[in-house]
Amino acid sequence: MIQVGIIGGAGYTAGELIRLLINHPETEINFVYSTSNAGNKISKVHQDLIGSLDLEFTDTINPDVDVLFLCLGHGNSVKFLSANTFSNQTKIIDLGNDFRLEADKTFEGKTFVYGLPELNKDAIVKAKYIANPGCFATAIQLGLLPLADQGLLQQDVHVNAVTGATGAGTSLSATTHYTWRDNNFSYYKPFTHQHLGEINQSVKQLQNNFKSEIIFMPNRGNFSRGIFATIYTDFEGTVEDAENIYKLYYQDAKFTFVSDEFLHMKQVVNTNKCLVHLHKHNGKLLITSTIDNLLKGASGQAVQNMNLMFDFEETTGLGLKATYF
Amino acid sequence: MIQVGIIGGAGYTAGELIRLLINHPETEINFVYSTSNAGNKISKVHQDLIGSLDLEFTDTINPDVDVLFLCLGHGNSVKFLSANTFSNQTKIIDLGNDFRLEADKTFEGKTFVYGLPELNKDAIVKAKYIANPGCFATAIQLGLLPLADQGLLQQDVHVNAVTGATGAGTSLSATTHYTWRDNNFSYYKPFTHQHLGEINQSVKQLQNNFKSEIIFMPNRGNFSRGIFATIYTDFEGTVEDAENIYKLYYQDAKFTFVSDEFLHMKQVVNTNKCLVHLHKHNGKLLITSTIDNLLKGASGQAVQNMNLMFDFEETTGLGLKATYF
Amino acid sequence: MIQVGIIGGAGYTAGELIRLLINHPETEINFVYSTSNAGNKISKVHQDLIGSLDLEFTDTINPDVDVLFLCLGHGNSVKFLSANTFSNQTKIIDLGNDFRLEADKTFEGKTFVYGLPELNKDAIVKAKYIANPGCFATAIQLGLLPLADQGLLQQDVHVNAVTGATGAGTSLSATTHYTWRDNNFSYYKPFTHQHLGEINQSVKQLQNNFKSEIIFMPNRGNFSRGIFATIYTDFEGTVEDAENIYKLYYQDAKFTFVSDEFLHMKQVVNTNKCLVHLHKHNGKLLITSTIDNLLKGASGQAVQNMNLMFDFEETTGLGLKATYF
Amino acid sequence: MIQVGIIGGAGYTAGELIRLLINHPETEINFVYSTSNAGNKISKVHQDLIGSLDLEFTDTINPDVDVLFLCLGHGNSVKFLSANTFSNQTKIIDLGNDFRLEADKTFEGKTFVYGLPELNKDAIVKAKYIANPGCFATAIQLGLLPLADQGLLQQDVHVNAVTGATGAGTSLSATTHYTWRDNNFSYYKPFTHQHLGEINQSVKQLQNNFKSEIIFMPNRGNFSRGIFATIYTDFEGTVEDAENIYKLYYQDAKFTFVSDEFLHMKQVVNTNKCLVHLHKHNGKLLITSTIDNLLKGASGQAVQNMNLMFDFEETTGLGLKATYF
Repeated sequence: MIQVGIIGGAGYTAGELIRLLINHPETEINFVYSTSNAGNKISKVHQDLIGSLDLEFTDTINPDVDVLFLCLGHGNSVKFLSANTFSNQTKIIDLGNDFRLEADKTFEGKTFVYGLPELNKDAIVKAKYIANPGCFATAIQLGLLPLADQGLLQQDVHVNAVTGATGAGTSLSATTHYTWRDNNFSYYKPFTHQHLGEINQSVKQLQNNFKSEIIFMPNRGNFSRGIFATIYTDFEGTVEDAENIYKLYYQDAKFTFVSDEFLHMKQVVNTNKCLVHLHKHNGKLLITSTIDNLLKGASGQAVQNMNLMFDFEETTGLGLKATYF
Repeated sequence: MIQVGIIGGAGYTAGELIRLLINHPETEINFVYSTSNAGNKISKVHQDLIGSLDLEFTDTINPDVDVLFLCLGHGNSVKFLSANTFSNQTKIIDLGNDFRLEADKTFEGKTFVYGLPELNKDAIVKAKYIANPGCFATAIQLGLLPLADQGLLQQDVHVNAVTGATGAGTSLSATTHYTWRDNNFSYYKPFTHQHLGEINQSVKQLQNNFKSEIIFMPNRGNFSRGIFATIYTDFEGTVEDAENIYKLYYQDAKFTFVSDEFLHMKQVVNTNKCLVHLHKHNGKLLITSTIDNLLKGASGQAVQNMNLMFDFEETTGLGLKATYF
Repeated sequence: MIQVGIIGGAGYTAGELIRLLINHPETEINFVYSTSNAGNKISKVHQDLIGSLDLEFTDTINPDVDVLFLCLGHGNSVKFLSANTFSNQTKIIDLGNDFRLEADKTFEGKTFVYGLPELNKDAIVKAKYIANPGCFATAIQLGLLPLADQGLLQQDVHVNAVTGATGAGTSLSATTHYTWRDNNFSYYKPFTHQHLGEINQSVKQLQNNFKSEIIFMPNRGNFSRGIFATIYTDFEGTVEDAENIYKLYYQDAKFTFVSDEFLHMKQVVNTNKCLVHLHKHNGKLLITSTIDNLLKGASGQAVQNMNLMFDFEETTGLGLKATYF
Repeated sequence: MIQVGIIGGAGYTAGELIRLLINHPETEINFVYSTSNAGNKISKVHQDLIGSLDLEFTDTINPDVDVLFLCLGHGNSVKFLSANTFSNQTKIIDLGNDFRLEADKTFEGKTFVYGLPELNKDAIVKAKYIANPGCFATAIQLGLLPLADQGLLQQDVHVNAVTGATGAGTSLSATTHYTWRDNNFSYYKPFTHQHLGEINQSVKQLQNNFKSEIIFMPNRGNFSRGIFATIYTDFEGTVEDAENIYKLYYQDAKFTFVSDEFLHMKQVVNTNKCLVHLHKHNGKLLITSTIDNLLKGASGQAVQNMNLMFDFEETTGLGLKATYF
């Protein structure tokens, strides 16, 4: 059993991580750090854990844990690691966006590997420090990487994706108020979402001549969790050609699958899966990609990375029952 | 056209009032008072009003309006009227709970009439000051008053009612966060909801020997608007007897109707109606009562009272299209 | 008071039409035709109408009504008009798609005008027969027509739009089951939605050199009513240029307004409004357009057309209170 | 690994059972019987299973499986067992209501034990045939049994409970249509729900002098899964007395826990837990009980029973991650 520390324990991603790790046969939660909740039972905040976990939040770290998960707001991982020291043996998985880009990946002698197993599995297996991908970034990359891998992204890529209210974090705001969001629909940051950086970076990692634009419209849906992305771009082959490319690319993937049928989001909600579907019309390839933003888009992928780093079976602790309805 | 002033203009009930009054043929909105929003267009807060209303919020009152609506948090109407003076001709309708109970009804020489038209229509017509009923209180009273009127409430009354997220007001809180409330259900203030005071008062107004208990469980539903109340108590007659009592009591009611069939809440959402249904089983009469908490339970009833006070047709401006789906 | 007949009275659009017309000061509902419900009270099907309408469905038509609304499934208007004869004085508004395209617009000597007031107001005023636009078609056209009017649609147009469950009609299907749709998201008919025909036709009416493609992704949202469309295309001017073009085009529009701020769908739900917003980024103009699919997208627009045809004030009976929350 | 057969594989409870069993370390799904879907992949119906299960539905039974789950509509288990023969070694768990009552429990020489582990664990461990409890029945019994066990149910018991749309089964109906149920609330079978039979039977098993009435109002909520029940009855002791009684009764329960705080339903959704809370006011004890209707209320409890029958650890395969948000 490896010892796990979690920093920023009151948020959504930390909550999901705890939910996963209490059922993971190889991990023990050593501490959950939350300065604002120190001394309170974790089950007072993550109230579904009554009967499952008797631990309290702490404001003291144990620097000798085997693995540390940072579940902090963007920019705060750097601050936390500047102020706190861990053992050289401690592996770190950052769920924020502080270390995802090439320009940011090295910090105080630590080099973070971008933790998308479908892209960087070999590097993840050997890594000590992981930058866990963003949620939209995961869904969109898993829709694009097989084409990039074949050098086939030659034209602009049009992406429309919708995320749930958990995508906005636990803080209270006008657009997460129930009366606003219920039966509503809207969008934000048109064409400028911050995940475009890591998406472009990964696409260029596979297809270094990629020069087109990824045009991304992010939407707010009236649901709590899930991401549903539709992506299209020009593609010369047939839909069967595309399916072959994708199935080959994902042949060893443990959580990403190509479906023969149109998708809907609840096929993946509350699982670590990504489902991808391909459709061709008039020269355009439509790629649909759907994930749970808190699992494959955050905490589930973090556990998947941990499994790879510690040489556990990649799917350990991630055999999750979909909510489905 | 009478001139209308609205105090506390940024909340839900003020918003609904504005939405009603801009289509009311006999009223002109003279001012909407909101200190926090003074100088901003009303349509920046109530954003559906783009194209319908060009007015700005103000922090200056006009003391000569014909009618003033107080849309303030509970306890704040007393404070506001202490600090501000209006013409003797100005009629006042308070949507808060400051003046609903006998003990509170007189304030600085003004006497407030409890504004439930199905109970006090004659008094409302002559009133200058109205205490508009609470939302749960309206639904439950309209379920009970016909029996009280016949002196038939002889045993405990069991009430279970559920309200939407607008019932909790515009302020942000853990239980109005979308991720909490979506697909969730819970309750609050079991047996001690503050509306029990006005409900008991009205029941005793009609049946002064009422000595039983009204046992009230208020619930939080995962919807935005509406109240659905089920009420049962012992009843010796047949269901037809009950229907006759209710239909007689509501024969002149403009918005309260007795249905022959089981009810569902969306029959009344976005209308000023109350629907009532009666069902008998094993000595118990089950009374269902459903309203829109913001309309018949607040702003719609306030306009109904205004219509009565100014001798307009009672339904003026209240021919509202149900959302229904 | 003009006499109104409604054919196909049990569906969503007929229901909305009845809800509008019972509050319209210039109309009387003469009959509501539904063979499957003949003899039943209308309020048994449209259950919010208890207390508002005492009429029964009929299977007999009155051929002398002043105006007839056809609320039938696509293809059934032709069948109905083939089998039934009305007075030469009877004006007809078809809410289906049987007469919307140039190739279909003349039937048994009747010529149908495409009833989008923002495009064809003069023709509508003089028309005897109206083909009421489709819901997606209305939202998308109102987002594009000002540009087409200036000949500025020179490149491909990318449209992503989401509609609610009422968009699928009253029939029961797997994808309208609550357990499927709740907290779900999906799409259908990618790039091939049938409304593309009327959209392209209207764009070419204003800009006859339009040769680009309108690429349309229709989505299914987990809400009941509303359409939210985001549209982008290349645009050389500034966003202020665009705003001037749109504000000029809509200066006389009674229900279509240009907003200075990002939109969300509930600004228009349960109203006859269309709101449009403009945003520019890197050479692309993003146009947002949102309507209620059953009102501006169907029955509300039908009443607006009726008002124009009978020389009533265009907004009569359409001063609807938004649900908003 | 024991071999499992599932009869009636296309419904909600069979789907949940499959989702649980594919992650259960001691079971192998031998066949899933569905005459209407024979030959189709299971993942075509339960579409979240893409990538998780490659099996097809069959219309042929294997009579030698170790355990058989019957997931059939009420009344159909009797029919199925009349028409099909299984090995004497095959244990059977019926998720329908055919064998739950004393009068029905013996069928063709098989005697079914009522499978509520918190009531009948010893008998379940030894049983060959199990009648799995109803969903409402589970939630309400778990709220009442500790009091019955002490002989403390001396007065009428008032129960109000709400269930989600999955409670109504997969068949399409007016009240499971998204446009009906979204943001709606209603009730059905007031005071006469069929689960009252098994609830009364279990209460009397523990308190054979129970003579009062259980008055049960079942409601339909606008969510997909979950049951939230509030129950009150007269109670002479303090709330601490009640807590002691409940904590003692549930001291060995693996899934039923007493919470010190008010509950909300999503604490248990997508888990096999039941949470119970106690509150006292004016002589009345308020008991809240909440479960997931498809798990602790159906398939999860069925797996719990299987674990007990086969001497597996009771929680095996049931360490489920709550959806929570």
